[in-house]
Amino acid sequence: MKATMIHAARDVRLEDQPDPSIQKPTDAVVKVLAACICGSDLWYYRGDNPVEKPFRIGHEFVGIVEEAGSDVRSVRQGDFVIAPFMYSDNTCPHCQFGIQSACSSGGFWGFPDGDGLTVDGGQGEYVRVPLADGTLVSTRENPDAAMVPSLLALSDVMGTGWHAAVAAGVSEGDTVVVVGDGAVGLSGVLAASRMGAERVVAMSRHEPRARIARSFGATDIIAERGAAGEAAVLELTGGVGADAVLECVGTGQAMNTALTIARPGATVGYVGVPHGVELPVGEMFARNVGVAGGIAPARQYLPALRDDVLSGEINPGLVFDLELPLEKVAEGYAAMDERRAIKTLLRP
Amino acid sequence: MKATMIHAARDVRLEDQPDPSIQKPTDAVVKVLAACICGSDLWYYRGDNPVEKPFRIGHEFVGIVEEAGSDVRSVRQGDFVIAPFMYSDNTCPHCQFGIQSACSSGGFWGFPDGDGLTVDGGQGEYVRVPLADGTLVSTRENPDAAMVPSLLALSDVMGTGWHAAVAAGVSEGDTVVVVGDGAVGLSGVLAASRMGAERVVAMSRHEPRARIARSFGATDIIAERGAAGEAAVLELTGGVGADAVLECVGTGQAMNTALTIARPGATVGYVGVPHGVELPVGEMFARNVGVAGGIAPARQYLPALRDDVLSGEINPGLVFDLELPLEKVAEGYAAMDERRAIKTLLRP
Repeated sequence: MKATMIHAARDVRLEDQPDPSIQKPTDAVVKVLAACICGSDLWYYRGDNPVEKPFRIGHEFVGIVEEAGSDVRSVRQGDFVIAPFMYSDNTCPHCQFGIQSACSSGGFWGFPDGDGLTVDGGQGEYVRVPLADGTLVSTRENPDAAMVPSLLALSDVMGTGWHAAVAAGVSEGDTVVVVGDGAVGLSGVLAASRMGAERVVAMSRHEPRARIARSFGATDIIAERGAAGEAAVLELTGGVGADAVLECVGTGQAMNTALTIARPGATVGYVGVPHGVELPVGEMFARNVGVAGGIAPARQYLPALRDDVLSGEINPGLVFDLELPLEKVAEGYAAMDERRAIKTLLRP
Repeated sequence: MKATMIHAARDVRLEDQPDPSIQKPTDAVVKVLAACICGSDLWYYRGDNPVEKPFRIGHEFVGIVEEAGSDVRSVRQGDFVIAPFMYSDNTCPHCQFGIQSACSSGGFWGFPDGDGLTVDGGQGEYVRVPLADGTLVSTRENPDAAMVPSLLALSDVMGTGWHAAVAAGVSEGDTVVVVGDGAVGLSGVLAASRMGAERVVAMSRHEPRARIARSFGATDIIAERGAAGEAAVLELTGGVGADAVLECVGTGQAMNTALTIARPGATVGYVGVPHGVELPVGEMFARNVGVAGGIAPARQYLPALRDDVLSGEINPGLVFDLELPLEKVAEGYAAMDERRAIKTLLRP
């Protein structure tokens, strides 16, 4: 089969790889219908994270179960399934508490599992899915093609934006500010809006992204960044600050802005992988501003968000503004790197 | 009147000071019945915080209203009142959100107010109370003398321990660990227990403190610190970690322990003034462990906790294990500094 490898910064290639097969009775093999490229993949692509040795990249996909191991009970051949961006058993204590991203048997796509067996990356034609019962979420029927992008968005960005809003404690009637207008930030806008926030402020200086933010429920757009952006939020909130802030970037500047615009007593829900973030504990303490979040347990939120997509309540797939065949995966990375695309959907 | 000044590390003196009087129509003057010494006063006493110039120290007191300004509505001459450790208007947006410690008109006892007028410290015979309506909480009748210590504990330590538990999101049935066995940590044990935690683990290696912790509802005591203490918590929780952790010390070691023993998805509620704390954002992100807390809005919790004391539901005054006349204030500091006392109550 064909699957994507990253060899070094800016060197992404579609290559021949062994066809996956059932290795354990709890495995499934999924034929990928749609995959995508994540903002976190760009940390490697841009050289911000080192590529110590080439690896199979990609962790978001939906597809059809090609084969299920003998112990798999919840999905079967032919089912349409959504894979969260980590696999998990969904039975260990951490999973039971809803933090499947801390599953004691779980792991990341594209890296060897606990027994050293290859786990495929998501940007390929097929994937061996470990712990299929705990990992995969199926739809009862095969969905309309038009819904595939929105279901694919649940693999990561929508679950991650949702996690930011949960971690920030968004409540009905809140004023919520979302820092970051990438696919996760936009999903955070959708999450906050869906949770009943009265005012959802998107910090965005790119009109196409601001447009999606508005369609996701943003009531206000602030184009300024840094001190000017912070001042704009304070003005908009009568000098008080936001009831909840979603930090969806992961840089030091974004976190500083998020902490500054949170009102005393508020929480910054953060889901951007921290790069150069330092938490100013003295200021946080003085202002009673908390931080919560981390690697999103997308699996926790998947069943409910799936139902919301299938019923047409939400349409998170709008974040995909570029669709390419899998063989053009390198162009997909380049387009996101150069900010020509918010998020690239790939079709094997 | 007599009031306490700190001149330098280990130099605390009871001195003659001007009798306070009503300066603004929103003021009250309170005759202090009981005051106390705070763990945070020791930061100055021990030289961990510099004493740049001598100041009036003390921020916890209960007493009788001696005189109320013409605009004061909620208390009147003769009322028994509890003062939280900061004054606040209780009407600004931050107060309305329950974070009176961020009040836009509020401040700390012992320092000049916004107009440069002296605000007395709490360890003296009388105190001018700014914003008396917003600050003071009265009891309907003069309480029994036996209840005074527990009402005094609401000035700071009990409200601060309560805030740690609120910030940590303690819920019914939780396993909660409290790091720190000072008066705030012990109050945190009482708070967690009162909030319905099923298991409350106090980390304490001092038997008199562990005894109070048990009487406050601790189900388990862990005497080890550092890595050994962390291992003991993990063993006690089946390797999972605690559902909520209260960090009631403020040192780097205490925070590291708190973050390590929190299970993924848990929050560390921290109320110890941070000294040498660095938050390891990468680990927090990877484990989905949040931090929340800060300077406690004791005023928010005061009315309900007052009722709990008056009804005999809680007895937080047990943290006072030394009682001295005000003129022996220096001995009260020395006893706490040398850990001969958990918390000193002073009677003018």
